[in-house]
Amino acid sequence: MNPAGIEVYPRIKPKGEELQYKVKPGKKGFGITGLDEMLNGGFREGTITLISGGTGTGKTALALKFLLDGAEKCENELFLSFEEPVSQLIDNARQLGWETDKYLADGRLDIKFISPIELDVDKHAFEILDMVSSKKIDRLVIDSISSFESSVSDIQKYKDYLWAIAQQIKRRHITAIFTALNEDLFSPASVTKNQISLLADNIIILRYVEKNSSIKKVLGILKARGTNHDRDIREYEITPGGINVLGKLDKANMFI
Amino acid sequence: MNPAGIEVYPRIKPKGEELQYKVKPGKKGFGITGLDEMLNGGFREGTITLISGGTGTGKTALALKFLLDGAEKCENELFLSFEEPVSQLIDNARQLGWETDKYLADGRLDIKFISPIELDVDKHAFEILDMVSSKKIDRLVIDSISSFESSVSDIQKYKDYLWAIAQQIKRRHITAIFTALNEDLFSPASVTKNQISLLADNIIILRYVEKNSSIKKVLGILKARGTNHDRDIREYEITPGGINVLGKLDKANMFI
Amino acid sequence: MNPAGIEVYPRIKPKGEELQYKVKPGKKGFGITGLDEMLNGGFREGTITLISGGTGTGKTALALKFLLDGAEKCENELFLSFEEPVSQLIDNARQLGWETDKYLADGRLDIKFISPIELDVDKHAFEILDMVSSKKIDRLVIDSISSFESSVSDIQKYKDYLWAIAQQIKRRHITAIFTALNEDLFSPASVTKNQISLLADNIIILRYVEKNSSIKKVLGILKARGTNHDRDIREYEITPGGINVLGKLDKANMFI
Amino acid sequence: MNPAGIEVYPRIKPKGEELQYKVKPGKKGFGITGLDEMLNGGFREGTITLISGGTGTGKTALALKFLLDGAEKCENELFLSFEEPVSQLIDNARQLGWETDKYLADGRLDIKFISPIELDVDKHAFEILDMVSSKKIDRLVIDSISSFESSVSDIQKYKDYLWAIAQQIKRRHITAIFTALNEDLFSPASVTKNQISLLADNIIILRYVEKNSSIKKVLGILKARGTNHDRDIREYEITPGGINVLGKLDKANMFI
Amino acid sequence: MNPAGIEVYPRIKPKGEELQYKVKPGKKGFGITGLDEMLNGGFREGTITLISGGTGTGKTALALKFLLDGAEKCENELFLSFEEPVSQLIDNARQLGWETDKYLADGRLDIKFISPIELDVDKHAFEILDMVSSKKIDRLVIDSISSFESSVSDIQKYKDYLWAIAQQIKRRHITAIFTALNEDLFSPASVTKNQISLLADNIIILRYVEKNSSIKKVLGILKARGTNHDRDIREYEITPGGINVLGKLDKANMFI
Amino acid sequence: MNPAGIEVYPRIKPKGEELQYKVKPGKKGFGITGLDEMLNGGFREGTITLISGGTGTGKTALALKFLLDGAEKCENELFLSFEEPVSQLIDNARQLGWETDKYLADGRLDIKFISPIELDVDKHAFEILDMVSSKKIDRLVIDSISSFESSVSDIQKYKDYLWAIAQQIKRRHITAIFTALNEDLFSPASVTKNQISLLADNIIILRYVEKNSSIKKVLGILKARGTNHDRDIREYEITPGGINVLGKLDKANMFI
Repeated sequence: MNPAGIEVYPRIKPKGEELQYKVKPGKKGFGITGLDEMLNGGFREGTITLISGGTGTGKTALALKFLLDGAEKCENELFLSFEEPVSQLIDNARQLGWETDKYLADGRLDIKFISPIELDVDKHAFEILDMVSSKKIDRLVIDSISSFESSVSDIQKYKDYLWAIAQQIKRRHITAIFTALNEDLFSPASVTKNQISLLADNIIILRYVEKNSSIKKVLGILKARGTNHDRDIREYEITPGGINVLGKLDKANMFI
Repeated sequence: MNPAGIEVYPRIKPKGEELQYKVKPGKKGFGITGLDEMLNGGFREGTITLISGGTGTGKTALALKFLLDGAEKCENELFLSFEEPVSQLIDNARQLGWETDKYLADGRLDIKFISPIELDVDKHAFEILDMVSSKKIDRLVIDSISSFESSVSDIQKYKDYLWAIAQQIKRRHITAIFTALNEDLFSPASVTKNQISLLADNIIILRYVEKNSSIKKVLGILKARGTNHDRDIREYEITPGGINVLGKLDKANMFI
Repeated sequence: MNPAGIEVYPRIKPKGEELQYKVKPGKKGFGITGLDEMLNGGFREGTITLISGGTGTGKTALALKFLLDGAEKCENELFLSFEEPVSQLIDNARQLGWETDKYLADGRLDIKFISPIELDVDKHAFEILDMVSSKKIDRLVIDSISSFESSVSDIQKYKDYLWAIAQQIKRRHITAIFTALNEDLFSPASVTKNQISLLADNIIILRYVEKNSSIKKVLGILKARGTNHDRDIREYEITPGGINVLGKLDKANMFI
Repeated sequence: MNPAGIEVYPRIKPKGEELQYKVKPGKKGFGITGLDEMLNGGFREGTITLISGGTGTGKTALALKFLLDGAEKCENELFLSFEEPVSQLIDNARQLGWETDKYLADGRLDIKFISPIELDVDKHAFEILDMVSSKKIDRLVIDSISSFESSVSDIQKYKDYLWAIAQQIKRRHITAIFTALNEDLFSPASVTKNQISLLADNIIILRYVEKNSSIKKVLGILKARGTNHDRDIREYEITPGGINVLGKLDKANMFI
Repeated sequence: MNPAGIEVYPRIKPKGEELQYKVKPGKKGFGITGLDEMLNGGFREGTITLISGGTGTGKTALALKFLLDGAEKCENELFLSFEEPVSQLIDNARQLGWETDKYLADGRLDIKFISPIELDVDKHAFEILDMVSSKKIDRLVIDSISSFESSVSDIQKYKDYLWAIAQQIKRRHITAIFTALNEDLFSPASVTKNQISLLADNIIILRYVEKNSSIKKVLGILKARGTNHDRDIREYEITPGGINVLGKLDKANMFI
Repeated sequence: MNPAGIEVYPRIKPKGEELQYKVKPGKKGFGITGLDEMLNGGFREGTITLISGGTGTGKTALALKFLLDGAEKCENELFLSFEEPVSQLIDNARQLGWETDKYLADGRLDIKFISPIELDVDKHAFEILDMVSSKKIDRLVIDSISSFESSVSDIQKYKDYLWAIAQQIKRRHITAIFTALNEDLFSPASVTKNQISLLADNIIILRYVEKNSSIKKVLGILKARGTNHDRDIREYEITPGGINVLGKLDKANMFI
């Protein structure tokens, strides 16, 4: 186990297919060995990533870890939470062995919470857009885009706003993660609806599967722009030591 | 069989994976050995749990047992029933070998019944909110959140109210269970709709499966905040001796 | 074959699991050996049972037999039919070898028919409620609650009325059966919709399955309040000798 | 092959389960040996039968043959067609080796055609009701009840009308067949919708299945009031020699 | 390969089941050996055929070939196209080795094109009806009835119009093909909706299946009035040499 | 690996079925060996191709490669993008080893971007139509027709516009590709809705499948007008060396 509490089990691979893992220039990863490995170092800078999964699959934790990895590298990070209050996010991180205090203290990590009840796109749109565009942010998380969408009565406004945020992200070369709640808990989401997929350069899917009468979690990378990413469907677990990406899961049935 | 009428069958496990079962500080369990074991002692204090299942799977019984376990430890408990009258709840408990009288008598357990027909959120919202916030409650049950939802014409009001209750629960460090009726009897519920899953720190799913031409009940823990919980899908039964959580059920097909 | 025309085939069971079959005090059964056995003697007095099944699965016959069993024990019974005229019910009973005449003559069995076309809840609600509450009834059947529901334009009125009837049933310690038509002929019903399941203490599901290119009927008891009921899915047949509950049916696929 | 052009292949049965086939008093059959055998002689007099099937499964032919069998026994028959003109019905019958001319000539068979385009329930309701109630009819066919339903804008009117017709049928002890078009060609119909199943004493289901890369037709009797009918799912074919009911079809998958 | 460019692979059949193939009097076929064989010579004169299939399955080609076969026999043919311009139809025919020029020149084949965009039933209804009724047509194609339907705002008008055309077809003893686009590409169409199946004397279904990781096309004849047609599900291919109907395809899964 | 960065793995074929691969006159291909091979050289000139697939399957990359192949042959190409800005398209091409600069510089390749947010069919219709008809274009891409459709409130206008563009394409003998986003990520699209399939001479389907717990991409050609195309379902991959079409994928399950 390394200092960041990340443990990786060896992935079983055919011989001669040795993966070369080293952080590439211009790439931003999670600091989760197995996952960064799958991404060939991380996401390309200035890209937008969609993480889609059911409740409890760890979308928020993954997204937060992405920011913590950046904060550790002295970047500036912003987490826009429409789901959990700041204290709960911090507490959850602690449960996974991740400290957020020093980053919050020195300003490298900023967490803004707008409760899904209070979220009013017409009211908050410019405020949020302003946060994204005025601060010198390196990595951004919007958790979740689903809460965001469900708070808008006018779908066109939602699209316009999303587009405007995406424009700012691209323009400022921010590397962003949008999380999306998959309501059909045990079937693959329709990740392409409402144009989210048009904005997403990278898509990671999280889901539950049943294996030997236990509930397992698996992840797969559907696309990752400009990266020859790993196509395997791999098991992962969320433990007090962090998020561990394990080996391939036989008959993962991700797409059924 | 122990005094509380709880019996646990040995769970078959691979060697060396010995589970350590002891109640953790700050954890609140059911007093059902197998289940508390799966939860690594219980839920974290101040969390909200969603128990989702079809009719007859024992959601209400589980939720009541959770309160009885607290009452036995001299905590204060409140059961808000929108489905069954108090007498029926007491009678049902008796059928499972659980006595409620002494706790009701000494005030440690309080059961409030509002019939689903009479339930009018606009009318009862503040009353319920007041009960939650004014009393010094340690554990709370709302049975069921489905009755609650179906009595509201305006979904936004439902969300606002749910959020307000959740806020009070969190603020007062109450440990709560919300039950949800899964209408699709034999398929997994969409537990994430209407933002319930955003409020739920822990999710337990109950369902029927068919095994050797018999009707079995299985449960699985989807998530449990801050707890390295058991991922197995285990059979359970509701008997005159209480609720027994048994071993893993082969091919449980919880997610299909 | 016994005098009542009920024949039971031996059920294959593992040794040492000998079921004790004798009518329990305070229990009300069907007088169908196999089924009463599964119910451990019968339903608890004062409970409401939901029998759900497709057309032709014998819901009405089962419900009527339940009343005949009571009549034979000198109880007072009421059958509220919204589907079949009295003469047809009597004729159908005769086809199964059941005589209703003497019970109708001495008043122990009363059958009221309101055609589904004429059924107007607003008009008949108080009349029906009055029948339930004014007569000294031991057992009651409402056949079917589906006809009842489909005749109401206002779903809230339906719920209110159902609730009021259920209240009277509980208050007067009547043991009742509500039948429900499963429209999806070959898949399990959504028995929990419109709050019926909240009222039901006991649920029996009837359905068709295909076995060796023949059409079989199977039944399962989903729940039975206060009773450690049999969980098997057993075949049954409706014959000139009555309703016979047979053994378990391999691969019954009740839930698929 | 017998004079009526009906040929029956031997049905493979376990020994000792010899079916006794002879026409019972008060029963009305099709004059199709295999099918009458399955019905234990035929339908009970004064009952209503629903024949449900996809296009081309032979609902109309079966219904017409039922009338021809009665005409041959000097009964009076009425065929109400909302789908095919009289000439086409006669021609179709001829293709199956059935002569209708003599029965039409001597008045024992009457065929009335109202095109589905012209069918206007408000206009034709009393006319049809009048035909059913004024004539001394022994057997009646309504082909199809689906055309009938789709021509009504007000579903309540449809129900009222259907009920009124059914009342006349029962009152006059007419034996009737209603055909219903199953729109989901290859899956079992929801035969219970719109209260048809409440009126139907007998239900026969026709459907296509694929067997060894050929298209087969199978039929099953779901219920037959007052008759201990055959439960097998049997293949049948429509040939120039009439309708032949063959043996059981392995893995008929009627209900899937 | 014969002069018409039609090639047929031998169909594997059990011995003694020798199919007799010769064109029957009063029958109209495609001039495609395998298919005419399946139809026992062709469709009966004066019948309407529905050909249903997904895009690219060759509905239009089959329908055109039917007319060319008639033209070769000196009949008069009319092709009403709501999908493809005349030139494209001619070009497509040429790709399959079929010459249309001489038939167009001598007037035996007439092709009328109304673009689906311009098609206005209210405007074109009488014109089309006039074409059908005024010309001495032997064979008629409407390609496709789906375009026709989607251009009508009032479904009742569509039904009336369809019925009127069908009446003219029957009255004039025209042999007609209506094509229908199956929108669910890989599942069997609901061919019975909107009363098309009431008009269709014959139904041919075309669909894609996957076999050994290749895309195959199969066809089946669901019904053919007055014809003891072949029930097999057979593969076919569309090649520069025309349309070839091959043998049965194992596990064709036409109905799943 | 050849200069264009295209690598093809040998396709396993039965002996004697040697495919002849050479570019045919009047055919336009992708310059992707395996795919052009499947198309027997390419699409016929003046045809419209629909490429349908989920997000990340490479629709845009395939379409762009089609234009680059033409540009290399000194043709004039136009790419209408409603999804990605020009810079992103160029960057994406570079990731696959494709240079666009020289073609953009010498005017052989033109890329027009209208953001999906700004796309207003009423406003842009004539402009786009003008681009198609005024320029001497050899190959055209519209990426995607789905964005185009979702920006239109009036479906009839969408159809009219699409039809007008298609008319211009046909008239000017332009060879065009329309891409379509399949929203149901893991199931085959309904490619035939809204008359797109009426316009499409050729249809290529892209989709994800799971194989040995890895995410694979497969493609199949559903139809290709005037071409005896390959019917296999073949794996492909998008790599820094371009798009590689590999061999058949066992149990590709393209249609399930």
